[in-house]
Amino acid sequence: MMRTRPLKVALLGCGVVGSEVARIMTTHADDLAARIGAPVELAGVAVRRPDKVREGIPQDLVTTDATALVKRGDLDVVVEVIGGIEPARTLITTAFEHGASVVSANKALLAQDGAALHAAAEEHDKDLYYEAAVAGAIPLIRPLRESLAGDKVNRVLGIVNGTTNFILDKMDSTGAGYQEALDEATALGYAEADPTADVEGFDAAAKAAILAGIAFHTRVRLDDVYREGMTEVTAADFASAKEMGCTIKLLAICERSKDGASVTARVHPAMIPLTHPLASVRGAYNAVFVESDAAGQLMFYGPGAGGAPTASAVLGDLVAVCRNRLSNATGPGESAYAALPVSPMGEVVTRYHISLDVADKPGVLAQVATVFAEHGVSIDTVRQQGKDGEASLVVVTHRASDASLNGTVEALRKLDTVRGVASIMRVEGE
Amino acid sequence: MMRTRPLKVALLGCGVVGSEVARIMTTHADDLAARIGAPVELAGVAVRRPDKVREGIPQDLVTTDATALVKRGDLDVVVEVIGGIEPARTLITTAFEHGASVVSANKALLAQDGAALHAAAEEHDKDLYYEAAVAGAIPLIRPLRESLAGDKVNRVLGIVNGTTNFILDKMDSTGAGYQEALDEATALGYAEADPTADVEGFDAAAKAAILAGIAFHTRVRLDDVYREGMTEVTAADFASAKEMGCTIKLLAICERSKDGASVTARVHPAMIPLTHPLASVRGAYNAVFVESDAAGQLMFYGPGAGGAPTASAVLGDLVAVCRNRLSNATGPGESAYAALPVSPMGEVVTRYHISLDVADKPGVLAQVATVFAEHGVSIDTVRQQGKDGEASLVVVTHRASDASLNGTVEALRKLDTVRGVASIMRVEGE
Repeated sequence: MMRTRPLKVALLGCGVVGSEVARIMTTHADDLAARIGAPVELAGVAVRRPDKVREGIPQDLVTTDATALVKRGDLDVVVEVIGGIEPARTLITTAFEHGASVVSANKALLAQDGAALHAAAEEHDKDLYYEAAVAGAIPLIRPLRESLAGDKVNRVLGIVNGTTNFILDKMDSTGAGYQEALDEATALGYAEADPTADVEGFDAAAKAAILAGIAFHTRVRLDDVYREGMTEVTAADFASAKEMGCTIKLLAICERSKDGASVTARVHPAMIPLTHPLASVRGAYNAVFVESDAAGQLMFYGPGAGGAPTASAVLGDLVAVCRNRLSNATGPGESAYAALPVSPMGEVVTRYHISLDVADKPGVLAQVATVFAEHGVSIDTVRQQGKDGEASLVVVTHRASDASLNGTVEALRKLDTVRGVASIMRVEGE
Repeated sequence: MMRTRPLKVALLGCGVVGSEVARIMTTHADDLAARIGAPVELAGVAVRRPDKVREGIPQDLVTTDATALVKRGDLDVVVEVIGGIEPARTLITTAFEHGASVVSANKALLAQDGAALHAAAEEHDKDLYYEAAVAGAIPLIRPLRESLAGDKVNRVLGIVNGTTNFILDKMDSTGAGYQEALDEATALGYAEADPTADVEGFDAAAKAAILAGIAFHTRVRLDDVYREGMTEVTAADFASAKEMGCTIKLLAICERSKDGASVTARVHPAMIPLTHPLASVRGAYNAVFVESDAAGQLMFYGPGAGGAPTASAVLGDLVAVCRNRLSNATGPGESAYAALPVSPMGEVVTRYHISLDVADKPGVLAQVATVFAEHGVSIDTVRQQGKDGEASLVVVTHRASDASLNGTVEALRKLDTVRGVASIMRVEGE
């Protein structure tokens, strides 16, 4: 049974992702109509530069007035692929007010204002879908929000930024330093001219906030996510990792505490064993591990960015939202009923790999070990290397809180025999 | 807003999966209620042995009369975890007739009668969900049916049977023969007393039929799936695979033809390169690759069987179906509009690894090569090994149709100089 009145879709933004969404809507129109149960029609495209020629998009659909477009009142769905906070936020809420549901790929906005946007959607009885906001084409939001809706998720651990994974993979495989690997990523188009959002972990932190919120049925904002970039990872760190049978990845980690009463979310570089499936995620690919009570360990892997993969996720959401419109229903909205407190980084418990430059004389190891013991941080292994009156100590700890580790390091720095703390890196995935 | 009237759920079957579903429904009742928007109540449990004590299930809910249970008329959802064709099929259609939606984990039934069951669901405006039927806890049906609904899937390639993967992994890692590895799988509970359904590929073929149907929007029945078991894979095959930098997996492969006009579905052992992510899927785990136009390559990985993982998938569906009930809507039903023809195995195009026992004399390679050429099968590499008047030829072909390869092998068998065809194995995942 095909309904003949088409569903009207407006596109906000027509860059790499938007143009691909428009292209697929045109070239796969019959498939989309069959899957939705009604044809979909591109009703308008809001752009910044109206004079640019866009293949396959009729010029009379193009407008620079995005506000007027979302206020038309006859739209079924607004697809927002502008990115950034404003004007995206105002356009989305205006779209809800004027009767449209929204599909967005905007991780920054959802991480910052997800709760308010969900509330606006609910107030107007509309859908807000955003599979494309996290890990591009990889289905993650829908599996967490729907497939695991009857399970209890305890941990989400993943590589959710392709740019930094490309850089770290390059450093690992070639021995290159950070700057050299970044330059190659920039030359190949994997890194933007200003790579700050990627390399400082802001992009991954936004995704961690979104994933943690859905996984734990708790509001988690960008500000709740501990964030450490990967610009200070060195070739020496990779050498240390190799000695431990590990590699280094920038990880987003969302965890429920052992007693289940709180959660944490964080982004930082970490060593993971080469035997862990995340260790073999190459280039700009993304992969996310999800651990839950009943399902156990699941992994989702695929291209985390790019025009076509992101468009695939947007269109999957578009089909779902259109189906919901036809049956006068809405999909699952925000689920924040658990309202668990988000603990600060100090309460995160993990293992650490610490490299110290120390004086090469008797008794240093005993001094260092005493400091660890005094702070309740238990040592797993120590390796001592001496050369020319200088020596290095590599300590790998058992699980300890971040606060205890920080206290330990502060005390170590005060020891006369410790010349410097060369590196501290967390060890995950064991 | 919590609705107070609970949704009533009947459970058909209370074995490994059913008892876990009942347990989680009880222990996680508050979470389920919050996620659905109304409490769910276990209204009845149909079992074969009513006198068996089932922890956590009140005896007054237990009945041996499954038919009377599904006819009650006040049920919202029937969860079918009996398995097999009858009485499951009749119970499911009876449930629809009496107003309930259905969640099933029954791959055999869905592969055989999916179309009729979907039609019955649609006739009564009810949901039929079955995430648990394929690859246990791994979200696959929902991603294919919803996340990729705006994309064009070209290929599904996966390990969807944990028992056979355990056996093949064991053969690969220890050099054990098939029987020895099967015995260990049986002893550890990974293989059933009668392992036929697993080792002969029936279980994987049912899953391939379900996946192909959803991926290609086309009806694919169990009978349409080419099926070859893995009982004849030998230690020698693993040795050959290793020489090629490969391992051997039992794969389910669903493909759209190059011109897009037809599809194929098949299950058989195959060599895959060690660099392919499926090569490192260990033990009883499952993993499925999905290749589509826009999303590119996605992989889904996790436990493919077991009580708790399967229950996780069942409960995810239960939450979705309950939400649909509350909003008087139904989720996506069968999508078979593409109605592509399912081509026979002869039209499948892939590469082959063939071991021949030949006479150790000049001219044999020329004879063999001529036969390949006459059948239009192009040779990639040949390796000749001679010992004691006997010799072996290992031929790896370029891509050729199964029909051409069969013709080639038939003609090779007729050559005086070919003493026997030691093994033929397909090479996939390149």
